[in-house]
Amino acid sequence: MKVPSYELDKRVADFQLSLKSKGIDGALLVQRADTLYYTGTAQNVHVYIPAEGKPIVLTYRDFIRAQAESSWAVIPLKGMSKIPAYIQEAGHLLPKTLGLELDVLPVNQFERYRKIFPEVSFVDVSPEIRYQRAVKSNWERNRLEESAKILPEVLEYAKNILRPGMTEIELEGLLEGKARALGHGGHVRMRGFGSEFHVGAITSGARAAMNSSFDGPVTGKGTSVAHPNGASMDPIKEGEPILVDMVTVYNGYQIDQTRILSLGPLSEELTKAYEITLQVEELIRRALIPGRVAGEVFEEILTWVQENTSYEENFMGYGAGRVRFVGHGVGLELDELPTISKGSKEVLKAGMVIAIEPKFVFPDLGAVGIEDTVIVEGELGAAFLSVTSRNLIIV
Amino acid sequence: MKVPSYELDKRVADFQLSLKSKGIDGALLVQRADTLYYTGTAQNVHVYIPAEGKPIVLTYRDFIRAQAESSWAVIPLKGMSKIPAYIQEAGHLLPKTLGLELDVLPVNQFERYRKIFPEVSFVDVSPEIRYQRAVKSNWERNRLEESAKILPEVLEYAKNILRPGMTEIELEGLLEGKARALGHGGHVRMRGFGSEFHVGAITSGARAAMNSSFDGPVTGKGTSVAHPNGASMDPIKEGEPILVDMVTVYNGYQIDQTRILSLGPLSEELTKAYEITLQVEELIRRALIPGRVAGEVFEEILTWVQENTSYEENFMGYGAGRVRFVGHGVGLELDELPTISKGSKEVLKAGMVIAIEPKFVFPDLGAVGIEDTVIVEGELGAAFLSVTSRNLIIV
Repeated sequence: MKVPSYELDKRVADFQLSLKSKGIDGALLVQRADTLYYTGTAQNVHVYIPAEGKPIVLTYRDFIRAQAESSWAVIPLKGMSKIPAYIQEAGHLLPKTLGLELDVLPVNQFERYRKIFPEVSFVDVSPEIRYQRAVKSNWERNRLEESAKILPEVLEYAKNILRPGMTEIELEGLLEGKARALGHGGHVRMRGFGSEFHVGAITSGARAAMNSSFDGPVTGKGTSVAHPNGASMDPIKEGEPILVDMVTVYNGYQIDQTRILSLGPLSEELTKAYEITLQVEELIRRALIPGRVAGEVFEEILTWVQENTSYEENFMGYGAGRVRFVGHGVGLELDELPTISKGSKEVLKAGMVIAIEPKFVFPDLGAVGIEDTVIVEGELGAAFLSVTSRNLIIV
Repeated sequence: MKVPSYELDKRVADFQLSLKSKGIDGALLVQRADTLYYTGTAQNVHVYIPAEGKPIVLTYRDFIRAQAESSWAVIPLKGMSKIPAYIQEAGHLLPKTLGLELDVLPVNQFERYRKIFPEVSFVDVSPEIRYQRAVKSNWERNRLEESAKILPEVLEYAKNILRPGMTEIELEGLLEGKARALGHGGHVRMRGFGSEFHVGAITSGARAAMNSSFDGPVTGKGTSVAHPNGASMDPIKEGEPILVDMVTVYNGYQIDQTRILSLGPLSEELTKAYEITLQVEELIRRALIPGRVAGEVFEEILTWVQENTSYEENFMGYGAGRVRFVGHGVGLELDELPTISKGSKEVLKAGMVIAIEPKFVFPDLGAVGIEDTVIVEGELGAAFLSVTSRNLIIV
């Protein structure tokens, strides 16, 4: 689906306001999620956004698709050294101060821009971009609601195919295949340097308590030393919690969700722990109110778990694997703002979309928990975008 | 599978030789494929490799797994500012010249290192790393041979499930699911900034001639504007070539392959064109001899296609989508050295592993071609690592 021009106009206009307020003459953006956000195309482009006037989109490939998808002028890029010329030919003055995405831009590429723009002073505009993108428009909300339709069907399918002896990776492969058939875009974008993600974590029993490089409460064993996250080659056993943490992406917009399945009933203790995570999720959801500070919400939730449960040491991971957040922004990327995390000063705004994921991890038994993607609205708390039943799925 | 210590010893020793020859006192590496290569763990680590002496591995998470996987000293990383202290505590002098991966390292992270190492001059060691990693050891060759066992089974499965009306994305999902069940690690690593890859390109008919952001001869339509590569939601039609370009990764090592399937026979013209790509592949394979210059091999192949076929304008893409290479290095990453590309000065060496992929793209009919992963050996040309039959798969 094409991004409508009114949407692109608004995104660029809002970004230009923050450029002006910081005295930045223009921004040259290259990171895929950012260029998709401001141009409407995920082709291989540079976009120059002046503080005033229309952006220009410079592309290596593919020109035809970029032109069909973006509402801005699209120009074939014949070499990075020509970028200043393209800017001037479009009727803009060369910037004195140029914004770049210095949180992701590799040093060698930055050095090329320094040679191309010898007189220019460079500033990092990634915070402005990330805070702007954190607040979703109605059009984006509709895209997220479409993306949310995939996972319920995937979980229905899981009920039919789950069987004893099946390996974690077999289950993951089948569930991803089903999500793909329903239009899941496959590649899940992350911004953080070195972040690697495939489908999510489909992990069962004690493997769910294995920590790894991935910065999440439950990451799994993985298939090998080289891929130490997510599903393993080990078989799923009856009575063990099967944690299905999956991201679906549709028209670029991601929904992050976790549900617990099992072959046969779970123990009373795990069932009780699971029910507590539902309570905690509800507390988080109600606390996500415009004006609140993310770090304060995190502390409030942590305190509640300390005072009302016996699972403090199991909350959001176990041992060295414990993470210091209970939610993270999602949209075009999986690691967007805000993070409902320790010390976060981020102030919640209506339209922010957040995956909230209270989980308890038990070293011997495995992990139980819930994750839904919600949108900040008003005083009553955030609204659910994900639409899957929150019942345990006992097969 | 653990990387044996003799393998890690050799990799580090060879890297230390190139550090010394360049007068570099040490290197601080953070990129996943590089740190996996030198440490044996894919956990979240910094590795400091001094020009002489043993490396140290600094990790945020997960310490326990990193320690079990690496043969070097593993130290919990309590903050980047402490890195110089860890280096000194390990008995090393602080470097005067420090190597970093400046081809991938983001500017903001580099600025942090500059503050942490105020007296140090920084140099890019990514060329040394990439040239070293281009030449595979016997142990690595064995891993690649294991990875190559997955795709023949996936293609056998494809014969059973392929049916008219199936969408491209349905086929891709099922084939990836099968590969996953056989141990495919899922996430395919690429080094280039902004490179995005999921499973490969499963694309049929004229969609195979749609160009996109991905730098390959055949990229496909994709599922949406946001994911404009690979399989689409469109149905596969009888008599059209179905190009299955898939990467499998096992123990971190990637095999890149392409085969052509179809529902019912292909036209005589496409069948003939396909047979020519087999001839071209054989010419490339035979030309991959130690000492030869990659760019010269590329020109030789291009000339042969110009002189012996009527498909010059269809070779390696069509129109703006034509790429200027016929092969690329593979291993822990999909975009390794050498590239058999226009103007490449890279000199072939025994042990280099290269995916060779001659393809013809016809705007109305679709794409036919072949891709195999081979290893450079001696005068007789490269040896096949991929083991799938090269016949057209007519279902």
